[in-house]
Parts: sequence; C-alpha cells; structure tokens
Amino acid sequence: MSLITPFPTAPFTFTKSLEAFARAQRVIPAGIPGHLGPTEGLHLPHDAFPKFAARAEGTRFWDLDGNEFIDWMCAYGPNILGYNDPDVTAAAKAQAELEDVVSLPSTVMIDFAELLVDQVASADWAVFAKNGGDTTTLAVMTARAATLRKKIVFIKGFYHGVAPWTQKLDYPGVLEEEVANNLYVPWNDLDALRAMLSEHRGEIAALISTPYMHGNFVDNELPAEGYWQEVRRLCDEHGIVLIVDDVRTGFRLDLAGSDHHFGFEADLICFCKALANGYNVSALMGKDSLKEAVSSITYTGSYWMSAVPFAAGIATQRKLREIDAPILFRRLGTRLTAGLVAAGAASGFTLVASGAPALFYLRVADPANSLMLHQEWVAECVRRGVYITSHHNHFLNAAVTDADVDRTVEIAAEAFAVLRQRHPEAV
Amino acid sequence: MSLITPFPTAPFTFTKSLEAFARAQRVIPAGIPGHLGPTEGLHLPHDAFPKFAARAEGTRFWDLDGNEFIDWMCAYGPNILGYNDPDVTAAAKAQAELEDVVSLPSTVMIDFAELLVDQVASADWAVFAKNGGDTTTLAVMTARAATLRKKIVFIKGFYHGVAPWTQKLDYPGVLEEEVANNLYVPWNDLDALRAMLSEHRGEIAALISTPYMHGNFVDNELPAEGYWQEVRRLCDEHGIVLIVDDVRTGFRLDLAGSDHHFGFEADLICFCKALANGYNVSALMGKDSLKEAVSSITYTGSYWMSAVPFAAGIATQRKLREIDAPILFRRLGTRLTAGLVAAGAASGFTLVASGAPALFYLRVADPANSLMLHQEWVAECVRRGVYITSHHNHFLNAAVTDADVDRTVEIAAEAFAVLRQRHPEAV
Repeated sequence: MSLITPFPTAPFTFTKSLEAFARAQRVIPAGIPGHLGPTEGLHLPHDAFPKFAARAEGTRFWDLDGNEFIDWMCAYGPNILGYNDPDVTAAAKAQAELEDVVSLPSTVMIDFAELLVDQVASADWAVFAKNGGDTTTLAVMTARAATLRKKIVFIKGFYHGVAPWTQKLDYPGVLEEEVANNLYVPWNDLDALRAMLSEHRGEIAALISTPYMHGNFVDNELPAEGYWQEVRRLCDEHGIVLIVDDVRTGFRLDLAGSDHHFGFEADLICFCKALANGYNVSALMGKDSLKEAVSSITYTGSYWMSAVPFAAGIATQRKLREIDAPILFRRLGTRLTAGLVAAGAASGFTLVASGAPALFYLRVADPANSLMLHQEWVAECVRRGVYITSHHNHFLNAAVTDADVDRTVEIAAEAFAVLRQRHPEAV
Repeated sequence: MSLITPFPTAPFTFTKSLEAFARAQRVIPAGIPGHLGPTEGLHLPHDAFPKFAARAEGTRFWDLDGNEFIDWMCAYGPNILGYNDPDVTAAAKAQAELEDVVSLPSTVMIDFAELLVDQVASADWAVFAKNGGDTTTLAVMTARAATLRKKIVFIKGFYHGVAPWTQKLDYPGVLEEEVANNLYVPWNDLDALRAMLSEHRGEIAALISTPYMHGNFVDNELPAEGYWQEVRRLCDEHGIVLIVDDVRTGFRLDLAGSDHHFGFEADLICFCKALANGYNVSALMGKDSLKEAVSSITYTGSYWMSAVPFAAGIATQRKLREIDAPILFRRLGTRLTAGLVAAGAASGFTLVASGAPALFYLRVADPANSLMLHQEWVAECVRRGVYITSHHNHFLNAAVTDADVDRTVEIAAEAFAVLRQRHPEAV
C-alpha cells in the first residue's frame, strides 16, 4: 500500500471527556469501572483516549467532544450487529410495550431457550442470568454438585469474570480459601494437563477454558491441532465436566458455539455479551446429563426473567443466522488485519495480528517488547477516529463495511507514519 | 367489614400457563428459575398459580390465560412506580435512541451516581452493577480489602443473593471453604452479637444485614428499639465494616436509605430491585473512607455501563421524590393489611401481618403452624385475581389506589369465606 499524505487529519481533543472523567471520579470510585480507569493498561496514555460516548449507531460512536469513531471494541463484545440495529430495536420495543420485569416470566423466555437449544450444537437446555460471571459460577457449582468433587482446572491466562473464585490470591479482597481448589495448567499443553489429571485423579470437578487463549497483554493463541479433541477425551476418561467459557467469543466464530467451531462438545457452555446485541442477558447452556445437577443449585436474580432482552436475543440470533455472520466476520477481519499489517510494514514496523480474525489481537513488535511503541501507535489511531485499545482483543460487528475497513487501514497507516517520524531509528 | 355474597367470582383457570410450564421444563431446568419452580414453597399448590404473564400495566398483570391480577409481588421488588410507568418509559426510550451498551459509558452514569449520592444519606459514592448479589459480593470483598480480615457476621435468616459465600454448606455446589469464614448470630440479639465480637476480636471484616428481618416462611421482624444504634457502635468499637443489604427494602421505607429510616449510617449499602422500576441495574454505595478499598477490587461486567437503566433510574428516583412514595406506601400498606386482618377475623381466622406495611408479610395462623391453611387461603386469593405468594413478603407500588386496596380486601374476604366453608372447625 502507498503511504498517504502525512497527517492530513487534525488529531482529536478530548477536553469534555476528561472534564467529565474528573467529575465522575468524585462520585464513582476510579471514575469508570473496569478496564478504563486511569491506571489500567487499556487506556494508556490516559489522556489520549475519549472517556464518554454520547451517541452510537452501526459501527460508530461519537464521544462527548463530538469526535466520530469507527469502533473496533464493540462494547467489548455485545455489539455484534451494529449499534442500535433496527430489527433488534423493533423487537425490544414491541416486547417493552407488553411487559419486561414482572412477577412471572413471559413465554418469550421459553422461545429464546428453544431457539438457543436448537442452534447451539452441544446443549440441551439454557438457564438465563445477567452477567457472564453468573454463568461461569453456576457452571462450576453445577460441576461440583454433579461430581461431588472440589477442584477446578483453569488454563493460565484465564478470565472467567470477577467472582472471588475466579480471581487470584494476591488480588485485594480475595481469600486463600476461595481459590484453594483452583489448579492451573498452561494453554495448549496436553502433557501438563495429563500430569495434573493423574496427580489429582478423582478430585477434579471441572476444567474451565475459553475456546482459545484470548488473554490481555499477550498475543492470542488458537488451539493446536487435535488439542480440544484430546482435552475432551481426557475429561471423559477422568469424569470431569468440561466447561467452555464462550462469553467473549460466542457467536463470532460459529453460531452453534465455539466448541462446535473447534470440533468438540462442551458439557456446559457460557454465553453473554453477543447474545442480544447489548441487551442485558447471559445464558448457561448444557447437556441433559447435567440438567438435574443444575436444577439443584440455589440460583436466581432480581432481573433474570426480564422479557425485553429475551426478545432482543431472538431478533439478534435470527439475524446472525440470516446473514451468516461468522463468515462475514472472518472475511472482514482477515481483510482488516492484512491491511493493518501491510500499513505497518510500509512504515517499517512489524504489526503482529493474532487470534481469530473476528476477534483480532494486535501488537506492534519492538525488540524490548516494552509495548510502549504499540501504545503510542494505538493512541495515534484513536486520535484520528479509529477506536481500538492497547492490550485487549478487538471485535467485528455485522454493520462493518469494506469502506470501514479501508478507512481504518488508511488512518492506521497515518498513525504508523507519525510513529516513524517520531522514532526514525525504532525497531 | 361485612361478608360479601359468597363466591360471586368464578375462579380462574391456568390451562395455558401450565401447558407453557411443561414446554419450559423441556429446555429450561426446573421450568422457571428461582422461587417459582414446581417444588418451591411460594407457588404451593403448584397448579393454583399462573406461571406466565403476557402483559403488565400499573398495578396489574394479565396471565397467559387472559386472567387479570392485582399484583402485590411487584416482580419481587422492581415494580415500585407501577408497571410501564410513562415517565420512566419515556426517559428510557430517549436514552435508547442515543445509545445503551457502548465501548465507553454515557455521562448519564455520572448523573445517576450524583443523584444517588445526593439522596442516600450515608453514602459518598456509587458503583453500578447488574445483580443485588454483585453488590453484596463487592461489599464483602471491599470490607476484606480494607480490614485485611476474613470473617463476616451474618444474621440468621439472611438472604444476600446466590454467590457461594452467601449460601450454606448443605446446599448443592457449595464448598466448606467458601463458607468457612461465615459467622451467624440471631436477629435483634445484641448479647449474642457482643459475645461473638469479643470471641473473634480482630478477625471480623464486616457485618452484613438487611435493615430488618424479612425472611421467607417466617413472620418478619422489625429492629428492636436502639438495636441498630448499638450495632453501629459495636462495629465502630471493633473496626468492623457495617454493610446494609437494602436490595429488597430500598426506596420503599425511605428514599435516603433504610439505614436512615432506622436512624443510623451504614458504611456500605447495597441497592438493586427498585432502583430503576425494573430496568436492570444495581448499585453499591458507601462512605469515602472505603473509596480507596473499593477501587482496589477487580470488578466489572459486560453490561455494567448500560446507559438506558441509568436514565430509567434517574426518572424513577425523581418521581419517587416528587410523590413522596414511602409515605404513600406506608398509608396504603397499613390500610391494606388492616383490611386483610379484618377480613380474616370476619370468617373467624387470625391473619398475622408483619414487617413494614410497604413490604407486608402475611400468615394465616393455625394451631399446628402447618402453613397449609395459609397456602390454601393464598391460592383462593390468586384464583380470584389477587396475586400474592405464600411465604414471601409482598410489595407496594405507587400506582396502587384505594380502589385496588378495597378490591383486594373484598377478594381476600371471599377467599376466607371459602376457607371457612371448607374447614368449618378450623382454628
């Protein structure tokens, strides 16, 4: 690709966003919860990122200062069809006119469960909740109830929500008792897994894992050939419940579940983010063999029977099927990452794209692996209207067009050129 | 009150509801999660209750068979202004047109936090989440991070959500390690509390309690005179974080918090259900002294920055203030329970109403305390269009009129008359 005229874009300013962030910090601890606080890695340098969005539509959001962004974070997953998708919005509005949170559920809950059971290859039933973490916790409790065992195998680099049992001992507020039954093995390491299963034979209730390793701050890793088939076999051999946490990847690789995409079947599978295009709902799904165990768990929540998210979920999943969304994501994600890598090369930088194209992870390589050069490039992209973050995977949505991809590559190229001018000797 | 003509009402049938429930059981474990499953105590006898609602408006819902109910369960709390309140709906729609779940929050999150910090007497900040249980878990983690202690004091009969640490050792899927640091004292028992605090001096991170004891299956109990003031003093003396779980009672007793209603200040206070009239949002609020500790906890969720529930919450709280809702709830709840008790007496039954009038709990007394007579009376009310459940507190909402109260008492009287005819010798 040819280098475009340097810096035609006037970089954005985030004055109103940063003022609002200061206001937020007075009444909300850390200002914004989660990844976007002033000390977290995803918004570094802090003042190079907008902090508040005012409007969102399709592939775009507009921040508080009126800047327009092509958004590759997709609300960290929920935006799978495009913001404010007209079909999902219409379904949600129609349901809201009837009812939402009532003393009894709506039969739209059954409709959504039937749709998902029909669609998700490995599952026979669905339990709905509100957070991804509600489903990973229910999955682990179900596995313990079914096996009467305590230990859970985690894959190093895991993220399964924020419940104490998913955290680490050195994190504030977490007790050693809460993580005492956690075992950890490296991703893609069958020898280590075999050794662990032998050592703890009869003690392990479940193995929980994402379909591939999409950790933050590191290149994402797909499963090795045959990895999942052997994990499945080992779980069967040892009577271990295999839990797939499809919260982040769900419906972007395969509408039948990411276990289906990689050619195996989970016993329990956790969905959340992309279920209903942002409407607040999560689902644990599983096999009939675990239906009695999951029914035995005391588990409920104030809004878990909200009818509007179920209606939105039905509209979302129907549309994803109609447009065969995973194929679209793969094509556009592949084209985008190829374009970004080429844009880096044109300025002499090595951009590493990893993970599935639908959830691509980026890293500008530098010899010291300091990630500073990467952060600088990301900040220059953001200042020009491409919203990405430094150390988290990105997400495709179905409103993305080839023109969005082209514009993103154009801005990325400009950001690389800025970087090269600033660091003539780098890399 | 005079007994009305016996049985002018043709009792409802629930054919379509029960058919749908059978359909639900095929794809949803237990059919309906939580309280409403076939083996739970709130819907006994199972087939005397509708299972699915088709529409809701104001104080009413209509079930799948077209039966109309005056709903005193209020979705177990969320419905505080009346279903589909026009002001809340308008605010939610306006926000939904702009944005809901986006990669960055809306400043409506700050607006809602500011409103709540201004309104809730004891609190200086707010963290938003999705479940009541998200906030009780964050509260406990915050207390542990702040005190570097492990133990938590619970009041017997407690309910603080469904996280493993809030459950009991004999519940399926719960490990002994997860409840190893829980201590239990009886409600309203200061001597027992003092003894426990002395025995575990320096080990206790927090005491968590609802503002009064609103357990299921038992008469609800208000705090004894001076109880909360002494609990507050003891927590200060022992350096214990005082957590008030206002998830169920919040905004029905006092818009400034139920701690304010009972004349003390919590360190941390948990809100959920009635925050936004059913829109899905919860909030942990607390004192500045714990702001750093809460900021240190790793805690986030996929939908926690949803803008629509914040906008709905602002509209809900403003309207609750405008109409001085707790006064309304108290007046109507007192009038209703007095009417119900009189209706029982007219047929020779002793109906015991307990708890705050805004969240009244009912029990038809019988010498064997079998609760069967009570269940039978509840079922006869439900079959005639008054939706109550057997062993859970009820809820007032601001759409309730004196005519709703009158009609409810009329139907209750009829149900008592049926009971008397069926059991001429009872009680």
